[in-house]
Amino acid sequence: MATRRREKMEIEKKRWGFRGKQELNAASASTVRGYVNQIIARINKDNSSSVIRLGHGDPSHFPSFKTTLAAEDAIVDALRSAKHNCYAPSAGVLPARRAIADYLNRDLPCKLSPDDVYLTSGCTQAIEVAINVLSRPGANILLPRPGFPYYESRSAYNHLEVRHYDLLPEKGWEVDLDAVETIADENTVALVIINPGNPCGNVFSYEQLHKRQQESLGFWLFLMKLKTIWHLEALVMCQCEYWGQPCLFSPWGLYQRDGSFQDGAWGGLSQAIPIAFLKNSGVIDSIAKFLNISSDPATFIQAAIPQILENTKEDFFSKIISTLRECADICYNRIEEIPSLTCPKKPEGSMFVMVKLNLSMLEDINDDMDFCLKLAEEESVIVLPGIAVGLKNWLRITFAIEPSLLQEGLGRIKGFCQRHAKKQ
Amino acid sequence: MATRRREKMEIEKKRWGFRGKQELNAASASTVRGYVNQIIARINKDNSSSVIRLGHGDPSHFPSFKTTLAAEDAIVDALRSAKHNCYAPSAGVLPARRAIADYLNRDLPCKLSPDDVYLTSGCTQAIEVAINVLSRPGANILLPRPGFPYYESRSAYNHLEVRHYDLLPEKGWEVDLDAVETIADENTVALVIINPGNPCGNVFSYEQLHKRQQESLGFWLFLMKLKTIWHLEALVMCQCEYWGQPCLFSPWGLYQRDGSFQDGAWGGLSQAIPIAFLKNSGVIDSIAKFLNISSDPATFIQAAIPQILENTKEDFFSKIISTLRECADICYNRIEEIPSLTCPKKPEGSMFVMVKLNLSMLEDINDDMDFCLKLAEEESVIVLPGIAVGLKNWLRITFAIEPSLLQEGLGRIKGFCQRHAKKQ
Repeated sequence: MATRRREKMEIEKKRWGFRGKQELNAASASTVRGYVNQIIARINKDNSSSVIRLGHGDPSHFPSFKTTLAAEDAIVDALRSAKHNCYAPSAGVLPARRAIADYLNRDLPCKLSPDDVYLTSGCTQAIEVAINVLSRPGANILLPRPGFPYYESRSAYNHLEVRHYDLLPEKGWEVDLDAVETIADENTVALVIINPGNPCGNVFSYEQLHKRQQESLGFWLFLMKLKTIWHLEALVMCQCEYWGQPCLFSPWGLYQRDGSFQDGAWGGLSQAIPIAFLKNSGVIDSIAKFLNISSDPATFIQAAIPQILENTKEDFFSKIISTLRECADICYNRIEEIPSLTCPKKPEGSMFVMVKLNLSMLEDINDDMDFCLKLAEEESVIVLPGIAVGLKNWLRITFAIEPSLLQEGLGRIKGFCQRHAKKQ
Repeated sequence: MATRRREKMEIEKKRWGFRGKQELNAASASTVRGYVNQIIARINKDNSSSVIRLGHGDPSHFPSFKTTLAAEDAIVDALRSAKHNCYAPSAGVLPARRAIADYLNRDLPCKLSPDDVYLTSGCTQAIEVAINVLSRPGANILLPRPGFPYYESRSAYNHLEVRHYDLLPEKGWEVDLDAVETIADENTVALVIINPGNPCGNVFSYEQLHKRQQESLGFWLFLMKLKTIWHLEALVMCQCEYWGQPCLFSPWGLYQRDGSFQDGAWGGLSQAIPIAFLKNSGVIDSIAKFLNISSDPATFIQAAIPQILENTKEDFFSKIISTLRECADICYNRIEEIPSLTCPKKPEGSMFVMVKLNLSMLEDINDDMDFCLKLAEEESVIVLPGIAVGLKNWLRITFAIEPSLLQEGLGRIKGFCQRHAKKQ
């Protein structure tokens, strides 16, 4: 019976004509989630110690990183008002777009209008929109290595060719500009710079970026600017990431002192892309069209944004930033104690740090994935292998967790490395 | 200066290589939103009467269709608990998936497990996932005419060829089975049936569908089943749509008495697609992979689902259903009074009805769009032209609004038709 049934199923499958998609396999294979799940599966359930998760950045459920009560209150008020149980316009509700523009304009020489703001469900959807809008046959995108793998996943799914440029650990994770110039060509639709750096924790300052610009690096921060403007659910988290010096991750046009093209500075690829250019090139129009066929963030959450922005006090951000600094210090200092790990630069932003694995000092560790699997098994600590973000035999560690847990986790990593150290 | 700037912009645009996408234009052109916006723009702002919107179905902000307090309470509880300020698994949080499976299982002969349930941001994302997973070069999808245009939009964007089959007004909007058999071929990946009918308001009963199945209609309800199971934000609305007799819109496997292939009934295209088939064909695996690279519904909203399902009382649904019946009666009876409009069937489900425009009885109305534009201008009433859902010179009217407003709106439509009636 079972055989007969299977045969029929095979026939029907052929008739039906469904086929799995190659690009979906490629896109889904390399997600952070996929790696973390493999590693979690190796945790020894008989181990009495609690699991410590340094594998992905998700701080808001720890007491030290709890979101502001003002945000909760705003959402409850919007929900209880019963005024927002309806569809929103595809770009987002106007009061929220206006509030975000006003909020960003506080620091901007070039002013945004509500029409320049689009709301998405987190950065994930913002990146999805950007990649969909930019991709076309033959086009390529320049992504940093190490980077944030969701760009790779979405590019793979959309048949957008990925070309990597390196971030240089020996230069504090600066962009390898020579590599960028080599791989960029007339089919390059975007250069992605993640600032503050995920996963490296470095911050490009305004001055640094301005210098780079003079040196002819183009397409500045195009996608990351979009990402910022579209922030919605991750707005607070994003704020937290700005804990270093002022940086260009933030809003449009820090480059554009008057919001228009500066004729003097114009030339080749050495120009930031201001809003006017995006409008004229048709990108903004394509974004609006893509959002027309996309799902929206829940309307009552959108409606809460003006109140969130108005009522969240400065001390919320300063407290979170100070905790992040404390955690970065703990992380950097504890890793310095471990001979087989090297951290080339102390983090100045974001919530991650990249750590080099000195395999020659370890006895029975084959590579970064092997390190992570054994660490999970023996110490119930999760860290992400560098291979997941493009850098084999490195580790990506998040420090945005409760400081006491971070101490405990790094202590266990130290013990693990000592146990696996090569005998002198 | 301006000319020089424009020239430079043109050069840079060329260098940059961004091009708008043809498929995005096609996908975005035909949305309900697009038509409604055009019509709203024609409203005469000097007109003292309030605007009555019968153009799209969005009932929850009317007092008679207000969502249950239990849903609000559940979301507030989940939010205030601070336990859900974190990423969810890409398929959705387990307690929600379990609660939905249990809820649907109350009426199912074939039982769902939590693993059979995937959470999305509304039906929009569920349809997006389904179309992405199914589309491949050369494939086609069979869609009803009239229908729900989002299927057309997503198919256009994903290069999935659309083939329409008609719903027959003279037979109470039954499927034109002969047409289906003519247009289906070995590259057909899905047949979409919307039940209860949007936009026709008809309901296919279990018996009707079972009869059809015997007559060899295949790929039963595949997409709409997914749509139901994935329901999240629209869960309550979807419940409301079941106000007619029992129907197959609801959960998987009403056909599959034991959840497995029934050898006796198997043959050709005449078989419902049970879960086992979907799993074996790789569809479920592809869905999981696509969700891996998609944005998730807000975690705290997901977390509220078990409490929503547990605490929403039966009388909430019966009250909403009774209001919908009342509104359908009002709509059908008032349209009967208007000689130039014909409603072939009184709605038994959903929140829409299709109304035929008898142009020969109207003096200065060219077509359905012209009717809608002039109606907006003269009476501040919005209805959707049939062309937006595939049926030229019909109208789609939603009756899921406050009954008093519906009366008022239909009264104005009657006045409009009388004024524009051909003199005898």
